[in-house]
Amino acid sequence: MRVPKHVGIIPDGNRRWAQNQGMTKDKGYDKGLDPGLDAYRKCRDMGVDEVTFYGFTTDNTKRPADQTQAFTKACVEAANMLVQEGAALLVIGNTKSPMFPKELLPYTQRSQSKPGQIKANLLVNYGWHWDLNTLADAQKVNKNNIQQHIQSFDISRLDLIIRWGGRRRLSGFLPVQSIYADFYVIDDYWPAFNENHICDAFNWYDKQDVTLGG
Amino acid sequence: MRVPKHVGIIPDGNRRWAQNQGMTKDKGYDKGLDPGLDAYRKCRDMGVDEVTFYGFTTDNTKRPADQTQAFTKACVEAANMLVQEGAALLVIGNTKSPMFPKELLPYTQRSQSKPGQIKANLLVNYGWHWDLNTLADAQKVNKNNIQQHIQSFDISRLDLIIRWGGRRRLSGFLPVQSIYADFYVIDDYWPAFNENHICDAFNWYDKQDVTLGG
Repeated sequence: MRVPKHVGIIPDGNRRWAQNQGMTKDKGYDKGLDPGLDAYRKCRDMGVDEVTFYGFTTDNTKRPADQTQAFTKACVEAANMLVQEGAALLVIGNTKSPMFPKELLPYTQRSQSKPGQIKANLLVNYGWHWDLNTLADAQKVNKNNIQQHIQSFDISRLDLIIRWGGRRRLSGFLPVQSIYADFYVIDDYWPAFNENHICDAFNWYDKQDVTLGG
Repeated sequence: MRVPKHVGIIPDGNRRWAQNQGMTKDKGYDKGLDPGLDAYRKCRDMGVDEVTFYGFTTDNTKRPADQTQAFTKACVEAANMLVQEGAALLVIGNTKSPMFPKELLPYTQRSQSKPGQIKANLLVNYGWHWDLNTLADAQKVNKNNIQQHIQSFDISRLDLIIRWGGRRRLSGFLPVQSIYADFYVIDDYWPAFNENHICDAFNWYDKQDVTLGG
């Protein structure tokens, strides 16, 4: 099987899941933590080198406070769980804004991985515009060096992006690294994650013809 | 019905279609011309304001000469057909490269539309990196002005992107304008276009929840 080297995870549908369960929207994020660790482990065990999770965006921070507090807390816990597991964790996002949780500042430098573990990236208070705005400070960008000049330079090109929750859009997820990525959508909400979702996505990816525009 | 204001068209599968018909790959592009005009007319009649077609990319120009000649010729003819129809045509791409067809230079300024017609954009010798490289000349970019500083500043945000030929990837199609776009994939190859494809995509789009990250 041709396994994707770098997998992007868009864990959408937490709020819709919570509402379906009769809970308030903010209660959905906590239920996304175990799925995150399961997804990381499944990718690692399948032979993936790097997994990037979409935490929250600068756009998301305009939501009601109970929600922003809930997803911020969930991101801090997710980071701790991934480091505990031994992943080489890098948190990427706009640290200059008050919406960036201070607890995650140490992880804006990639942590050391334990043996047998892989890279994990977590986008926290991330914005596609924030990611691209350093291009304005670059001397000259071209196809071969453009990625070195964006904020997320340490995140590699994505091979496969999996989005839960049925929506077929990128919503600002790493626009440069997503250029050639294959995009797989799962209708189930993220808290209803199961390993078969990853298997389905990988089986589908295995049948895709990778051309990189050639 | 909630009609998308701006529709992106990725007309993929010309070569696979030609091979399935027992023809050489280069023969597929010419068969994509009538579908292009039909798609423009259908979007216009449905109430769309702007349609953007993915012509060819700087990556595509590395293909064998019979193919590059065939898709370049098809783009020139497509531009002429759209202007003949009365669309307000804008051709966007790297005009400084010899791969940009000189016949299209007049359309790098948007043409005047005839009454009842809409905007059409055609990406010719386009590259995502070329599109973003002017950011390096900008003074300061932020979420609100980043689009003004890219090469394709005159192309608005996409609401819906429809790709023919079954592949679920953007392949470098307007990364900034695609940020929030909904992405609909049709398995049929582009030369097998029919109007129902557009109707199916619009019906699906009508059911999507547009959040723009909120």
